[in-house]
Amino acid sequence: MEKIAVLGAGSWGTALAMVLYDNGHEVKLWTHDKSHAEEMNQTHQNIKYLPNITLPEDMHVYTSLAEVVKDVSAIVFVLPTKAIRDVCRQVKEVLDHKVTIIHGTKGIEPNTFKRVSEIMEEELPPELYNDIVVLSGPSHAEEVSEKQPTTVTASSKTMKDAERAQDLFINERFRVYTSADMVGVELGGSLKNIIALGAGISDGLGYGDNAKAALVTRGLAEIARLGTAKGADPLTFVGLSGVGDLIVTCTSVHSRNWKAGNLLAKGNKLEDVLAEMDMVVEGIRTTQAAYALAKEERIEMPITTGLYQILFEHANPKDIVDQLMTRMRKHEMEDLSLILSNRYTQ
Amino acid sequence: MEKIAVLGAGSWGTALAMVLYDNGHEVKLWTHDKSHAEEMNQTHQNIKYLPNITLPEDMHVYTSLAEVVKDVSAIVFVLPTKAIRDVCRQVKEVLDHKVTIIHGTKGIEPNTFKRVSEIMEEELPPELYNDIVVLSGPSHAEEVSEKQPTTVTASSKTMKDAERAQDLFINERFRVYTSADMVGVELGGSLKNIIALGAGISDGLGYGDNAKAALVTRGLAEIARLGTAKGADPLTFVGLSGVGDLIVTCTSVHSRNWKAGNLLAKGNKLEDVLAEMDMVVEGIRTTQAAYALAKEERIEMPITTGLYQILFEHANPKDIVDQLMTRMRKHEMEDLSLILSNRYTQ
Repeated sequence: MEKIAVLGAGSWGTALAMVLYDNGHEVKLWTHDKSHAEEMNQTHQNIKYLPNITLPEDMHVYTSLAEVVKDVSAIVFVLPTKAIRDVCRQVKEVLDHKVTIIHGTKGIEPNTFKRVSEIMEEELPPELYNDIVVLSGPSHAEEVSEKQPTTVTASSKTMKDAERAQDLFINERFRVYTSADMVGVELGGSLKNIIALGAGISDGLGYGDNAKAALVTRGLAEIARLGTAKGADPLTFVGLSGVGDLIVTCTSVHSRNWKAGNLLAKGNKLEDVLAEMDMVVEGIRTTQAAYALAKEERIEMPITTGLYQILFEHANPKDIVDQLMTRMRKHEMEDLSLILSNRYTQ
Repeated sequence: MEKIAVLGAGSWGTALAMVLYDNGHEVKLWTHDKSHAEEMNQTHQNIKYLPNITLPEDMHVYTSLAEVVKDVSAIVFVLPTKAIRDVCRQVKEVLDHKVTIIHGTKGIEPNTFKRVSEIMEEELPPELYNDIVVLSGPSHAEEVSEKQPTTVTASSKTMKDAERAQDLFINERFRVYTSADMVGVELGGSLKNIIALGAGISDGLGYGDNAKAALVTRGLAEIARLGTAKGADPLTFVGLSGVGDLIVTCTSVHSRNWKAGNLLAKGNKLEDVLAEMDMVVEGIRTTQAAYALAKEERIEMPITTGLYQILFEHANPKDIVDQLMTRMRKHEMEDLSLILSNRYTQ
């Protein structure tokens, strides 16, 4: 049994805290939001983000970072991408011992194009940890908190820390696999949110499952292309962090990225969608980052480009999706084939 | 404009006939079922299999094979796998000129393990056609008949006939891509029905999207493993006939394989499920074929094996799915990685 801090009391942070608690660990939850912390401590519920469960009475929610990290052996960051840099700086000020660092955040920093673990490495001094671990995969928080069977992947630069995260989180219902491809696991989890937005738009336009399947299949090839250019193993995109996470995010009512796309297709403006949802929709900033990155790397990403035009240039969703459906290449697999053959012949 | 015969008046045969008709071809539909033909000719509806659309008055439904094939330039077979051999023998007796042969059947013959085009090649004399074309992909018949955007793949041994099928079928809403990997396209479309049965069972047991995504991801690796052993290009399994078709079949209410799995999970017996559905559930016979084939080829197929035990050995669906969720390998991608690396280094 260990003492573990979970930073972020959103749906995923709370669900991961519950997994650790169920495994016998002492879990301290942190949020910067005082009223949210108070409410959770009083009601033992996370009404806003995960209303379906009751939190254990001995899982306290803190707003002081110093207090939450002071005697823990591991810290799990489950924050929006845009909060990672700032919270790391704050942790650095108050953490005085070495811990295991794990994150469950799916995003890319828009201007720097950095993955979450890269941001963390920049902000946290190396003496505070060995390797950073990413935990990612097809995992709706609601289902994890209800102890539905779930599989995720843990990855770090060397296998040792990924295996340590595996040991902390694994149980009968929450299966944790390890992967040596940290870049792929982080990028797969992040970039799939772009395709989820697109799937939501397709559904919102009233198009069927056939159209969505085509879009997701092409989307997979497209994000694998970018991921591979940034150093990922293309095979990761056929695993839990690619295909698996895409299936969950593009076909489930739980997905907030799908929901945002759905609202956009129905004629709502981006700012209204974000106001209505009142949750972080990582796919929007990730689209921005991937669009810029694809330009820089000269990679063709038609779905990402189309989404960028819908989100930031007021393009008509129907025009974009119709274009995507009719302008695909004639011979379907040439891109991915090329990527994979490069991988194995170089 | 050409004269084309479509053999099989189920939902997919009727939907494909409508695509050809919309493209300006004269389409003759065939079924062995006299009362079904009469009903369709009188009502201009396919009430049993595709009730949502009205058939054109000049699309006649025949029960005489001699009449339906006599002056056509192409024949499209859209029959259950178990009827293919017999109908080919009948066609051979009455067809006296060379035609383009296309099929849209997703299955494997249980005892011979033959793909549909292999069965057809055995039964049809080579002077009656050049190459057989398979048309496959993520395509619910209901949506195709409603002119929802859809993408499919056409494949044949040489590209020429696949391109001819592409020309016949392609339009703004029905996008046809070509692939050189006929084995992969046929096997991907067939084997995915096994995983759809499994997805239906998982859903029927009340498990969530996380569990289903894990199952489908593992299923994809498993069918790619068998497909590759039988000569398919593993990349086909990441395309429309693999991932794409899996997404549609495993997440849609339209899928009859999913529905059969769902009913099995709720405690119904196989014979009752089949009686209730009154439609061909190809995944059941395909599971049988793949199970035997995997044994012969010594390929590990845990999901197929589990399904075989549920279908034919009265195993408890919950026990099987729970076993599948907890007994996965520790390092997730090792199998598929091995396949793909073999492909590119040999």
